[in-house]
Amino acid sequence: MSEFDLIRNHLTGLGAVRDDVIIDVGDDCALLDVPKDRQLAVSIDTLVGGVHFLADCSPESVGYKALAVGLSDLAAAGAEPAWATLALTLPQADEAWLEAFARGFAALASEQDVRLVGGDITRGPLSITVQVHGFVPVDHALRRGGAKPGDLVCVSGALGDAGLALAHLGRGEPIDGYLRRRLERPTPRVALGEVLRGVATSAIDLSDGLLSDLGHILGASGCGARIELDRLPLADQVAGAVAASGDWSLPLASGDDYELCFTLAPCHAGELAILSAAAGCPLTRIGEIDSQPGLRFVLADGRPWQAAGTGYDHFG
Amino acid sequence: MSEFDLIRNHLTGLGAVRDDVIIDVGDDCALLDVPKDRQLAVSIDTLVGGVHFLADCSPESVGYKALAVGLSDLAAAGAEPAWATLALTLPQADEAWLEAFARGFAALASEQDVRLVGGDITRGPLSITVQVHGFVPVDHALRRGGAKPGDLVCVSGALGDAGLALAHLGRGEPIDGYLRRRLERPTPRVALGEVLRGVATSAIDLSDGLLSDLGHILGASGCGARIELDRLPLADQVAGAVAASGDWSLPLASGDDYELCFTLAPCHAGELAILSAAAGCPLTRIGEIDSQPGLRFVLADGRPWQAAGTGYDHFG
Repeated sequence: MSEFDLIRNHLTGLGAVRDDVIIDVGDDCALLDVPKDRQLAVSIDTLVGGVHFLADCSPESVGYKALAVGLSDLAAAGAEPAWATLALTLPQADEAWLEAFARGFAALASEQDVRLVGGDITRGPLSITVQVHGFVPVDHALRRGGAKPGDLVCVSGALGDAGLALAHLGRGEPIDGYLRRRLERPTPRVALGEVLRGVATSAIDLSDGLLSDLGHILGASGCGARIELDRLPLADQVAGAVAASGDWSLPLASGDDYELCFTLAPCHAGELAILSAAAGCPLTRIGEIDSQPGLRFVLADGRPWQAAGTGYDHFG
Repeated sequence: MSEFDLIRNHLTGLGAVRDDVIIDVGDDCALLDVPKDRQLAVSIDTLVGGVHFLADCSPESVGYKALAVGLSDLAAAGAEPAWATLALTLPQADEAWLEAFARGFAALASEQDVRLVGGDITRGPLSITVQVHGFVPVDHALRRGGAKPGDLVCVSGALGDAGLALAHLGRGEPIDGYLRRRLERPTPRVALGEVLRGVATSAIDLSDGLLSDLGHILGASGCGARIELDRLPLADQVAGAVAASGDWSLPLASGDDYELCFTLAPCHAGELAILSAAAGCPLTRIGEIDSQPGLRFVLADGRPWQAAGTGYDHFG
């Protein structure tokens, strides 16, 4: 079984059929048509075995998540997903693994109208790199650098679920179906990103934790923020863990949430329920942008809370 | 030094300045303008430390080669290079390594008018994935599947240099400057690819050896070929190694040549010198496409020669 056979047998024809794909997997390059009046948004990410996913994670979930992570970046730019390319490094030609991986990847790709247009397979320590490609109307991409004092800070979904799942698994404890789905099958907030175009003043996806990722918005926008901790949207299990420990690091500084954090001008404050309905996911206002640099957290009783870390960092 | 600092310090502003880059390294997505009347060609490739390059290869050469490999794929499609994205996996935050890697990458990027528009750094076993992006006039991309019986089979440059360099290094023997350049700093034949648009009937880049890569053209085109071994363009050292061993595997089945192999209709036979001058590299006619499936090699005296292997294969 050569690398060419592996690509032909397992990485060809994955995801949606799209008429903007002129040459698909199997030539030196894929050849693609970008629609007129659209800009191309691209993002590349690597998942390393044992670092970004546990060794015993099912290959189907790894395939799903490898694409979800990229689509979450497209969502943060407000882009409509179109194509993906995949570079796989495998320790050996394990066809059962590859078949399950491709099934997970294709499930999300089909759901999001994405085509896999290019694949590369090499031998080495397990690692998966996916590049995603999407479209944005000219000059309408969401960016990190547009937040202004007075803007509301909002997040989608719930925070800290994947972090709690990893903490349990790290201690050898079982996790329930909800936490496993949140860790292994995060939902990229693509519909939300499209709804926020022309509405949000800034956006980012939460891959490294709110502390770190909102920090990027503040850095790019040249402002600060005040977050009310009792407003954070938390699943019961995460709320319980925070209550038991008195430590807010779990929802603030653990990675892999893949929710969007975004800012809204105050005039849009009344529209959060409409945006939530349009995007099909919960949205919560958690604080406000201000002009004082830095990120401040306030407890329900008004006392400040100081974070110990700065979010997930590979080299920290 | 966090992954964000590493990206900001070492992967920002690499390569040419281009006004089709709307958002550069540092947001969730890069945002790019594809010119009207152009199709987008993309290719993704991974280099794994210890597999695709030797552990003692200079990081500057690794950076150069990681981009060259991708540009060679664009050349095979006849595409004009524009942008690259880079996903780096590093065992540790080695700034000296990263600085030298970026220098090598940027040297070739600037020379080929390419901008690095997206970067990701993760921790793990050393591995480098580069995606390249280029433009082709609508419906003018070179492909693998257009060769016809009677077409000439041609290659650029010389074959087997990188294979000979690796063989020497594998035996602990020194190599001269020519072989080292051919192994570590291959010249992607971008100008040749553009010259061949509308002229060549098929093209591929030689990354796995002529035997394997010309095999892909034949498979996609549904025909065979007859190659005259005494016509193969060989540097003196490679010719000497073949003469000494009587084995043609070195120029036929070793990888990393990064030359183009292409086919020309017989009516263009007289234009090889003009195409060579326009592309700035030697071009050699080495055989002919025929209707009999398979790849046949003929010695100078007319006897057939049988290849033992099928080119470089990661899982072979």
